[in-house]
Amino acid sequence: MDCFAPYQTAFEQSLKTYKLPSEPSGLYDPIAYILHLGGKRLRPCLVLAACEACKKSYDQAHQAALAVELFHNFTLIHDDIMDEAPLRRGKATVHSKWNLNTGILSGDAMLILAYQQFAHYNVSLQATLNALFSQTALEVCEGQEYDVAFEQMPQVSEAAYLKMIQFKTAVLVAAALKMGALIGEADSVSAELFYDFGLALGTAFQIQDDYLDAFGDPETFGKQVGGDILENKKTYLVVKLQELGSSSQRDTLDYWFGGNANTESQKKVTEVKKLFAESGAAEATREAVHAFTKESQQILITLEKRGINTTILKAFSEALLLRNL
Amino acid sequence: MDCFAPYQTAFEQSLKTYKLPSEPSGLYDPIAYILHLGGKRLRPCLVLAACEACKKSYDQAHQAALAVELFHNFTLIHDDIMDEAPLRRGKATVHSKWNLNTGILSGDAMLILAYQQFAHYNVSLQATLNALFSQTALEVCEGQEYDVAFEQMPQVSEAAYLKMIQFKTAVLVAAALKMGALIGEADSVSAELFYDFGLALGTAFQIQDDYLDAFGDPETFGKQVGGDILENKKTYLVVKLQELGSSSQRDTLDYWFGGNANTESQKKVTEVKKLFAESGAAEATREAVHAFTKESQQILITLEKRGINTTILKAFSEALLLRNL
Repeated sequence: MDCFAPYQTAFEQSLKTYKLPSEPSGLYDPIAYILHLGGKRLRPCLVLAACEACKKSYDQAHQAALAVELFHNFTLIHDDIMDEAPLRRGKATVHSKWNLNTGILSGDAMLILAYQQFAHYNVSLQATLNALFSQTALEVCEGQEYDVAFEQMPQVSEAAYLKMIQFKTAVLVAAALKMGALIGEADSVSAELFYDFGLALGTAFQIQDDYLDAFGDPETFGKQVGGDILENKKTYLVVKLQELGSSSQRDTLDYWFGGNANTESQKKVTEVKKLFAESGAAEATREAVHAFTKESQQILITLEKRGINTTILKAFSEALLLRNL
Repeated sequence: MDCFAPYQTAFEQSLKTYKLPSEPSGLYDPIAYILHLGGKRLRPCLVLAACEACKKSYDQAHQAALAVELFHNFTLIHDDIMDEAPLRRGKATVHSKWNLNTGILSGDAMLILAYQQFAHYNVSLQATLNALFSQTALEVCEGQEYDVAFEQMPQVSEAAYLKMIQFKTAVLVAAALKMGALIGEADSVSAELFYDFGLALGTAFQIQDDYLDAFGDPETFGKQVGGDILENKKTYLVVKLQELGSSSQRDTLDYWFGGNANTESQKKVTEVKKLFAESGAAEATREAVHAFTKESQQILITLEKRGINTTILKAFSEALLLRNL
């Protein structure tokens, strides 16, 4: 995503100057390891971009950007333990490279290191950023808990599903943008609009992710197409199928997800995708992506009227939703 | 410990008014569970007591006291996972009552809830408390990491051991006292003395704990006497034996801790205690408790000269070191 390259470069530069304590190495080496596994750095870049959209230099936004990246990586370490994931970005996850205890403890330390970054700001801004960060962090925990709980539930409502993905993913995108805006001295109404833009965009992105996991182009999607279906995951497509499908279509989904279907995996993917298409779930999912995208664009129009330079935010949302990453 | 009863009552009262969110219950029920397992509430009581020692009402100290108790319980949840402990205060630990993932996630949420408590204070005090809390929390993680790392090391220096127990335990006692002092509007020099008092007292307490685990009265100690010896734990007694003991005494300890000693456990406890006594390690341990206690008392004299009411702190240190709990 070319429009983001300058922010990525700036963030990587500032990350290089961030010095972790060297001792105890058993605590800090895993933190350095995951911080330097790479990744697109979307969240910290959003902090910088939002600050600049307020027509301020992003020099002051680096500590908040680092806080967001530290927090995001803390969630990756702990989530990878919970998911028993062996790999992250093609490399060993922290708990598999070291062990469970290291994963827990280094993750904990990363959350604390994230909070420490806000000490850079004046006490008033610090209080605002801390409150936003704590609320967001707690919601991310709640989102993770809902995600785990939903696995055990036969059916999940659309509202519950939206809350889960918003808490698990979109609120951090929203908070990153709002932090940048606050550091860029946006007024409180504009700062809230940055948050709302991020929430809508993050939600659109996450629903699109569900869609592309089933219907994406294997050449460009990045992950294995059909992976969610093979794992019987309750995606937005499943939620909509349960809401819109006929009784027979829902029974057929139960059959494929029930574990009794003894067939090769490609057939399962094909049949479930057919169900999504025929029930109207696929179309409803595309419509939801469209609706949240539209909402995010409406917010940008309002932000522009309030004197915000929305060029980069527009380019970002378009690139993200086109998966031109 | 009678002198502490009023603070315990006050803290329990304020804890009752603390409302956790009800949903998602899978996240918050385990937090309510461990918060209400009881315990002596020493750390939050120290926040209240320090504030009152500065001749201010402790009404303003309740949120910081709660932050300290939330943090302490967060460490208990995650430590119990790392230690694979089935029981805590005679009840099932969070990860054994629920599961590993719940233990990790509810612990994470508790750390965030702890930070949220400081939002109650004016922005300037909030910044000071946040910085102190983050530094302390990080040191507690470092202490836990040192503790785990020491298990794999053949020998640990006294300095390294002291740093470990101070980080793992004493800094939180120290920070609790300093927080109370800051809320009680102590000047910065006095606030630092509160910290130093807590650090010395916490260190004395922890070394005494090592001593009593071997030489305590089974009637009053509370835990199984000899437990550390049976677990081959590197306590202060072991550190001093390795420093002061003859080559033959150190070899004998290696024999008993080496796992090749095929004998009944009571004999192992008796023989290792004999080694501690004969090598001078037991006496050196008593002397260390005395020295740190003395240091804490000297600090109290200075604090008294600075207009602090040290009555409760004196009573507390005496009770703690007499284990009159």
